[in-house]
Amino acid sequence: MENWLTKRAQLSPDRLAVQYQETKLTFAQMKEKVQRIATQLAQLAQNEERIAVITSNQLQGYLMILAVQQLGKTVVLINRRLSAREINFQLQDAGVQVVVQDDDFALTLSVDQQVSFTEVLAIPVTTLIEPVAEFDLDAVTSIMYTSGTTGNPKGVMQTFGNHFYSAVGSALNLGIMADDVWLAVVPIFHISGLSIMMRSLIYGMGVRLFEKFDVHAINHALLNGEVTTISVVPMMLTQLLAELPANTRYHKNFRTMLLGGGPTDLTTLQRAKAAGIEVVQSYGMTETASQVIALDAANAQRKLGSAGKPLFPVSIRVAHQDDQQHGRIQIKSPTLAVGYLNQPEKYANTFEDGWFDTGDMGWLDDEGFLFIDGREGDMISSGGENVFPDEIESIYAKLDEIKQIAVVGVPDKKWGAVPVAFVTFKDGQTLSRQALRDFGRDMLAHYKVPAHFYKATDFPRTASGKVQRHKLRDLLANASEIE
Amino acid sequence: MENWLTKRAQLSPDRLAVQYQETKLTFAQMKEKVQRIATQLAQLAQNEERIAVITSNQLQGYLMILAVQQLGKTVVLINRRLSAREINFQLQDAGVQVVVQDDDFALTLSVDQQVSFTEVLAIPVTTLIEPVAEFDLDAVTSIMYTSGTTGNPKGVMQTFGNHFYSAVGSALNLGIMADDVWLAVVPIFHISGLSIMMRSLIYGMGVRLFEKFDVHAINHALLNGEVTTISVVPMMLTQLLAELPANTRYHKNFRTMLLGGGPTDLTTLQRAKAAGIEVVQSYGMTETASQVIALDAANAQRKLGSAGKPLFPVSIRVAHQDDQQHGRIQIKSPTLAVGYLNQPEKYANTFEDGWFDTGDMGWLDDEGFLFIDGREGDMISSGGENVFPDEIESIYAKLDEIKQIAVVGVPDKKWGAVPVAFVTFKDGQTLSRQALRDFGRDMLAHYKVPAHFYKATDFPRTASGKVQRHKLRDLLANASEIE
Repeated sequence: MENWLTKRAQLSPDRLAVQYQETKLTFAQMKEKVQRIATQLAQLAQNEERIAVITSNQLQGYLMILAVQQLGKTVVLINRRLSAREINFQLQDAGVQVVVQDDDFALTLSVDQQVSFTEVLAIPVTTLIEPVAEFDLDAVTSIMYTSGTTGNPKGVMQTFGNHFYSAVGSALNLGIMADDVWLAVVPIFHISGLSIMMRSLIYGMGVRLFEKFDVHAINHALLNGEVTTISVVPMMLTQLLAELPANTRYHKNFRTMLLGGGPTDLTTLQRAKAAGIEVVQSYGMTETASQVIALDAANAQRKLGSAGKPLFPVSIRVAHQDDQQHGRIQIKSPTLAVGYLNQPEKYANTFEDGWFDTGDMGWLDDEGFLFIDGREGDMISSGGENVFPDEIESIYAKLDEIKQIAVVGVPDKKWGAVPVAFVTFKDGQTLSRQALRDFGRDMLAHYKVPAHFYKATDFPRTASGKVQRHKLRDLLANASEIE
Repeated sequence: MENWLTKRAQLSPDRLAVQYQETKLTFAQMKEKVQRIATQLAQLAQNEERIAVITSNQLQGYLMILAVQQLGKTVVLINRRLSAREINFQLQDAGVQVVVQDDDFALTLSVDQQVSFTEVLAIPVTTLIEPVAEFDLDAVTSIMYTSGTTGNPKGVMQTFGNHFYSAVGSALNLGIMADDVWLAVVPIFHISGLSIMMRSLIYGMGVRLFEKFDVHAINHALLNGEVTTISVVPMMLTQLLAELPANTRYHKNFRTMLLGGGPTDLTTLQRAKAAGIEVVQSYGMTETASQVIALDAANAQRKLGSAGKPLFPVSIRVAHQDDQQHGRIQIKSPTLAVGYLNQPEKYANTFEDGWFDTGDMGWLDDEGFLFIDGREGDMISSGGENVFPDEIESIYAKLDEIKQIAVVGVPDKKWGAVPVAFVTFKDGQTLSRQALRDFGRDMLAHYKVPAHFYKATDFPRTASGKVQRHKLRDLLANASEIE
């Protein structure tokens, strides 16, 4: 297929491509800027197969990602919130030697070149490079890492074809109109945000880019009809509604609130309905290049708690069912990533008879709506990020003073959920709350650092001695924090 | 990909799938009817790879086409207007032995079984067959024949992938909304109509099926907001506008008038604009699975006469340019048919360096809009059908009395253009107008039979003696008809 950016600049040169703060770029303008940046990046990373971009949701990073694509190189998208240790693992795994980053990104990484966006933009340009003529649907264009319950993070390799079919599947579910504008406050280094960028190129759709989740500014955009669609996680939906004045309805242009990262409750849905919002619940992951299952607004209340039905190009099945017809949720989709970088076997092992096993359990009702029992293991969904207790525990286990640590998610008003830790120390040893927190902040993304550290003497255990994480919450009422 | 009909019945069971006269079917209802018909067809044509359907735009034929798909067999779509001789050629070429047909189709064909729809529907059903689970994007699902300037008609083999990418390309240009309804009065045995059926399955969109071009009834549907999109050829657009009362505007739900089969004029466009219509000019052919190039309404007047720009998945180039940058229009597209049945070399020969040569000449302006100089050779576009003078001349050449015949298209108020013939007879011989017409009606589709037969003594010729068809029109002023 022709280079999507070139094509878009040709087909709809004057349409809005992206708006960030007061800056608006049409597709023709964006193409020009991106081509210049691609020329600069080419000088920086001539022989590199991959370039890592570390950015928040701001315009320069947005254009950098597109520029890497224009060079025919793969962009490795790094979660800005990770620790240096975590990022270095990913860079090394992906063989990345060139990182371009937000000017205010302060960590020093183990790579040959760590270049700020301002430095990239200062590289002299004489002749503009020719962007790649075609986007090969089978070629890997983006890599982003996901954690799991066990082992190292996995570099998910997404092809142009993955992104294309994802955009098509979404369009066939939500519709597309020439004047659509999608608000991106979910991170562009996650698939939720990157998929909005790819849809923009494919649909010729504007993106309204927000760096921070500024409830007031975002509600303003939705009320004024500047935006037709927004992707949110549950905590965003709740906060947007909480801030909305009573008896206020969103603008009629605002068509869809696409909700990912977990289900919502009936009260929130009813509040949303009163405000004139169509909430489309959805389910997806990095490996499926964003949403593959979605519940439409028409069925939101009737099928409360359901993730919906598989999008048009997607098939699902529930395998290994028990008596109640609950089983493992498995997927076939042209949006499925082509593999985990350097871990082909690990990816192959997630498949069963050609079906990708999501690791989640669920069941289908008689109309084919999917209900998800719970996320993989004890995963905590915190403000749109997936947090795995295992990972946190294994990091803290490196501290000599700690005998055992157990982490569990607890509800949080702002983030939906946060991790908290129960700690036992070795005989005669101890660590302060501050020391525990500092260690975590060195080793882990901040959102993974337990919000509270509680003293424990022992943990609820199974007969075989395994800690029962879900029973830890029962201890909370009487727990006291480490000082 | 999952079987589109099964999938649609699953995703949007209660949405309108098709309306014909007063009958409306949802996707769930249509699936049920189609599955029953598929079971009946299976008994009729168990070992057949292909089944031919001969139908006008009516519901039974619509369902028959879908039923053939459900069996995993290829549907051969026959132009109902062709003569028995023309149809027999196609059936034989496609190795078809089973034809299902409109009850009022009267020709006797050279096949094992010629079964009317009523007869099909009377076949007893005990157990419903299981429809195919998947639609393989690489599998041929439809064959329709096209004529050209030379040689026999070619059976164009269209895959599911061709139809899928065509629907996606159209959606990315025109947008899609959940309540879209597309009016199909262009024949479902042509790609213009069949592509509407395929979009319906892929989008979950309603089709309003019209058997005849009933100007009044169609205007009624457009005025009442029952329809959002319609495909038309120029003569339809002109007649719809002519019948529209002054100062009347179409309903705001009516979004797009997709115009194929030739350009229109500024007066018509302005008249359409006044009636609130978005006319989207488009260009495509059987080999490209419908429109591949389209002009949007925003540019319709500014770029009058242009066919527009290639759709998102499509690339074009103009090859072998002359001084004025005119050249041959060539196309790359995932919608390109996989071949001509039994004539692989003929299809291969239409490609140059991987580009499909349309046979049409044109040029691109500095913004990338395509202008088409003229259709292949002397093709006549008559009421949505392509008519080739060569074919008509070669049929009449079989008459002993005729010395030479030359056919040319002339403008026609109703059909846009019609063929007329200039005839010279061998010494001392002659034929009446009636005899000429009867012969044509036996041998050719009615729309190919010259509307007038003029006496000639000789023809305008090139230095080498070849008849110059375009100069024949100069003779019209003084021509007299054969009696």
